Amino acid sequence: MSQELRTVDWTGTGIALIDQTLLPHRTETMHVRDVDTLVDAIQRLVVRGAPAIGAAGAYGVALALLQGEREDWTDGEILRAISRVREARPTAVNLMVCVDRVTARLPEGLDAVLAEAAAVQREDVEANRAMGAYGADWLLKKADQDRPLRILTHCNTGALATAGWGTALGVIRELHARGSLEVVYADETRPLLQGSRLTAWELVQEGIPHYVQADGAAAGTILRGEVDAAIVGADRIAANGDTANKVGTVGVALACADAGIPFLVAAPTTTVDLATATGDDIHIELRGEDEVLEWAGLRTAPAGSRGHNPAFDVTPGRLVTGLVTERGVLEVSAGELPGERLR
Amino acid sequence: MSQELRTVDWTGTGIALIDQTLLPHRTETMHVRDVDTLVDAIQRLVVRGAPAIGAAGAYGVALALLQGEREDWTDGEILRAISRVREARPTAVNLMVCVDRVTARLPEGLDAVLAEAAAVQREDVEANRAMGAYGADWLLKKADQDRPLRILTHCNTGALATAGWGTALGVIRELHARGSLEVVYADETRPLLQGSRLTAWELVQEGIPHYVQADGAAAGTILRGEVDAAIVGADRIAANGDTANKVGTVGVALACADAGIPFLVAAPTTTVDLATATGDDIHIELRGEDEVLEWAGLRTAPAGSRGHNPAFDVTPGRLVTGLVTERGVLEVSAGELPGERLR
Repeated sequence: MSQELRTVDWTGTGIALIDQTLLPHRTETMHVRDVDTLVDAIQRLVVRGAPAIGAAGAYGVALALLQGEREDWTDGEILRAISRVREARPTAVNLMVCVDRVTARLPEGLDAVLAEAAAVQREDVEANRAMGAYGADWLLKKADQDRPLRILTHCNTGALATAGWGTALGVIRELHARGSLEVVYADETRPLLQGSRLTAWELVQEGIPHYVQADGAAAGTILRGEVDAAIVGADRIAANGDTANKVGTVGVALACADAGIPFLVAAPTTTVDLATATGDDIHIELRGEDEVLEWAGLRTAPAGSRGHNPAFDVTPGRLVTGLVTERGVLEVSAGELPGERLR
Repeated sequence: MSQELRTVDWTGTGIALIDQTLLPHRTETMHVRDVDTLVDAIQRLVVRGAPAIGAAGAYGVALALLQGEREDWTDGEILRAISRVREARPTAVNLMVCVDRVTARLPEGLDAVLAEAAAVQREDVEANRAMGAYGADWLLKKADQDRPLRILTHCNTGALATAGWGTALGVIRELHARGSLEVVYADETRPLLQGSRLTAWELVQEGIPHYVQADGAAAGTILRGEVDAAIVGADRIAANGDTANKVGTVGVALACADAGIPFLVAAPTTTVDLATATGDDIHIELRGEDEVLEWAGLRTAPAGSRGHNPAFDVTPGRLVTGLVTERGVLEVSAGELPGERLR
């Protein structure tokens, strides 16, 4: 992605968001100047991806402050508005972490709030760069082959999901930069197609050879030995390494375990929630059924059918070969647990 | 489905096919009077589902005979036309089996050919009825609980996939008839959505409570203990029990194994191909990439993306808890192999 195009940006008067519901066919920016619009944008996935939601939340505190000044809010109203942003979606812990971090600077005023939000963004990109290097090093050692790697990934974890570079897609970018990437298999990621619309868009931009496939194809692709590893992102990681990520992820992990190939989770430590003991304690957002009963407004299922739409699933730590953060790689399934190593 | 509505039927002058590309929103019949149109209909999935393709192939022999008489074909041209039908799609063995069976009666003329095709249809429905009973008995014993069962299924295996009643969906119908079915989770089954369009349509008609879900949701649904068993169909079963079925199936099987719930394959013996030793010998049809790069004609991925579209995957016999045919249940993963038990 070019320097000018940022997933989440502060314009001086509000937040600019690339409208990810319109990609890949239209590249448009939504300008957000009030909290309710920001909350709606997060809930409709105009902005999505755990770190990007975190960045949006961080700037959301500044937005609440500005709107509060414009509309003469009390301090209580400002805090309630911030709380609406913080609770916009329940699964990605980065949203809460980033909002709380920036809110702590509220007493110092707008400039301090904006400085903290900018730091959130900057640290996210730096973490992603470090993650990319550690992850690439680890994977190349694990795969132990001379040939470039064939990688499977799920959902979108790129610049569009973060403040820049990406998490899992950042590791993929690093492998590509080293000449160590042969091809990427990108699950389209129903129901909202973050894979075929967003990941594919980023891969085309980078000139990275890739195939889009149905989510159901992932397990067979892995079992037939057509990929060397899978790399995914995360929305919340528990102390024991259980990882909540976009629905479809645990199926990829099970196939990797059966095929004996590495399953690597790439996420900044802001996605690790040590207060959450295990995956059982992670709240899986259930979204509206229409998302699975239709596409682009076209109903696929008959009238009378109901939809089941969990937006995430939990991969048990025993299936996580590696968890790479900006601090390096934990081999979770071998017993290196976040709760012990990342305190 | 009503008595009048049959997936594949002989009209006296040709073959009537419910056009399954138009379901669930339109119920239309395509009338086929020449072989090229039949081949195209099979390849475009106007008719699909291994036993239904077999029935279409069976009547395709009669079609070739009639067309040959109309257009003055030589015997060689008739046989080549039959061969085009036989080779229309490579994975489902029923097509080859049924075409060969009916072709054997060619020397006796049209009436004999039609009688054999009608027998193919009739035996398929009878097999499905038997399969439904054996499968329901086995599942209820395996599940060992008083509550009605919650079942996950994939693709479409109902009346639309067969000559009537269905295979996996036939077991589900039987459970429902016994009051032993609580709910069905139906994977939508990308890229062609046989689950959300066809299975959901049949379940609505039967008044069976169900949820449509994204294929990626299957593993999480299973691991969270939300279903008691999975039942799927098959397109070709090898002697060692390796089972080729709609892409997405092996992912369901892996999740069932991890969760310790039964994974039941329901298929007539016409789907078992003892000449195929293992899953490695099964030809997985690769279909056009557009099916995964778009949705209902709308492109989802950007220009420049390629698609990977294997239409089937292979579930190793070690993951097949039970294989139910019209002859009863083989516990494949426990060592009861088709190659030994079904000769």
